[in-house]
Amino acid sequence: MKTPITLAKAGEDRIVSEVTRGLSRRPDVVVGPGDDCAVVKSATRGHFDLLKCDAVVEGVHFLPDAPPQAIGWKSACRAVSDIAAMGGWPLFALVTVVARPRQSLDWLREVYRGLDRAARRHRFSIVGGETSRTADEAPAVISVSMAGRVEKNRCLLRSGAHPGDRLFVTGRLGGSRAGWHLRFQPRLDEARWLVKNFRPTAMIDLSDGLAKDLPRLAHASRAGFDIDLGALPRRRGASIAQALGDGEDFELLFTIPQKSATRLERAWKGRFPKLDLTAVGRITPAGRGDPESLLGSGGWDHFAGR
Amino acid sequence: MKTPITLAKAGEDRIVSEVTRGLSRRPDVVVGPGDDCAVVKSATRGHFDLLKCDAVVEGVHFLPDAPPQAIGWKSACRAVSDIAAMGGWPLFALVTVVARPRQSLDWLREVYRGLDRAARRHRFSIVGGETSRTADEAPAVISVSMAGRVEKNRCLLRSGAHPGDRLFVTGRLGGSRAGWHLRFQPRLDEARWLVKNFRPTAMIDLSDGLAKDLPRLAHASRAGFDIDLGALPRRRGASIAQALGDGEDFELLFTIPQKSATRLERAWKGRFPKLDLTAVGRITPAGRGDPESLLGSGGWDHFAGR
Repeated sequence: MKTPITLAKAGEDRIVSEVTRGLSRRPDVVVGPGDDCAVVKSATRGHFDLLKCDAVVEGVHFLPDAPPQAIGWKSACRAVSDIAAMGGWPLFALVTVVARPRQSLDWLREVYRGLDRAARRHRFSIVGGETSRTADEAPAVISVSMAGRVEKNRCLLRSGAHPGDRLFVTGRLGGSRAGWHLRFQPRLDEARWLVKNFRPTAMIDLSDGLAKDLPRLAHASRAGFDIDLGALPRRRGASIAQALGDGEDFELLFTIPQKSATRLERAWKGRFPKLDLTAVGRITPAGRGDPESLLGSGGWDHFAGR
Repeated sequence: MKTPITLAKAGEDRIVSEVTRGLSRRPDVVVGPGDDCAVVKSATRGHFDLLKCDAVVEGVHFLPDAPPQAIGWKSACRAVSDIAAMGGWPLFALVTVVARPRQSLDWLREVYRGLDRAARRHRFSIVGGETSRTADEAPAVISVSMAGRVEKNRCLLRSGAHPGDRLFVTGRLGGSRAGWHLRFQPRLDEARWLVKNFRPTAMIDLSDGLAKDLPRLAHASRAGFDIDLGALPRRRGASIAQALGDGEDFELLFTIPQKSATRLERAWKGRFPKLDLTAVGRITPAGRGDPESLLGSGGWDHFAGR
């Protein structure tokens, strides 16, 4: 008898690609599982609707003693970050909280306060809430699903990068677990400004670390990449390995044609003087670049737990 | 120092009403938290969009040895049942699976097979999948969020019932845990037929048992109710208490003006000869009827675990 393959052994990308393969698909689905969000036809002329769900698990994405408002903020902002990475904006959110019977009502109230803070900041509404109990000692889970919208001609997939495009990253990477992962600002305003004023070719939000997310973008674009590890913008005290592999940076990684790069860098400094924008490399033809060496250096895999 | 109120003590309805009170709300939200689904303005002329999320937890909603296809079927069909209860139809679903690292890839594949079976049967698409790990011994959680649509003039809330309206229930109640809860058929076709051919005034799906769900409908409609316990359609072997309190029937409970009741009963027999439709009572003015006695007899409360 063969030993069954566990989820830890299969790893996240294989899991998603295997289980979603062959699913039935309505003709109004534009992009199914595999990008930051699903894209579906919208009745709003010239627009697509965006759909995303994302869960945080106690002990994995936050510690039991994390401030509950921060847990709520994080669960909502993770989904906002994915919607931003498509070039869109959030509209509605549904929240599922799975909690222990002995958890306090105050804890849950605070989680919702954090969720609502994110909703006010990013102008979406929490339209549904569901709570379900779990076992007495089991970790709490907060799952947020979000609907958003984007103009068709501004919708950015992972798959549009071309050889020669420059690679940019916002903010600084690594060391997120020291606090940033609970209080990060999803780059929604920045992403909207970018798609309104430039023509980036592909975008992804850095949730699992550049070492995992850049190869995903390149793979989706059937391309390779060259990256200048020395140029990586690092959070204070973070090593290159941490900038590559820690994950939960929730910064944007995007590609843009070489000819727009200089204009972008100048305009960015004027518009977002406090937020770094760093050129970290370029897209190459497929087979060039070296995804394996980056992958070897880390990236967070939820099931492997590293 | 006051003892903090636990979720188990607060109970489900109080939890939802307390934590969702005061949430910010966009002007395009028609119905926020508290009904079977959220209702938001749709760009599709004459329609509303429906949004719903719902989670199943191992050990609470299914046992560890439940067939994984049935777990998938159940998690999707619970949300379909809520969309049906609004008079609408499902379009898109997002799935979050929280699982143990050592859970097998085959288990997850089978869960997705069950989800896809529900998608094909009820003509929606699974457009996004997310998996996250949990602790080694923690229960698995499957959360499904769903977007649907309904014609504005057919959208049915819990709150539209009037004194004098007749109360009807589809199918048979009680004893769901013997198997029905894993293989139930959400009453989507029946609900659509109903809103197309009649003018029901309020509807809810029976997920927590008539003893909890009927008072919710009456409360939302600021009304009372009289119920004929002897008339309750019971699953073979189920007592009246079980029909009231077991929950997970996923049948429809709806109200319709007295003058349409006879025509409805006749038309239903012709259209759905194999599915019972039973008149179980009527709506009364508020303060009449006896919600407390029903509530005393049970109804599933997820946090209390009964």
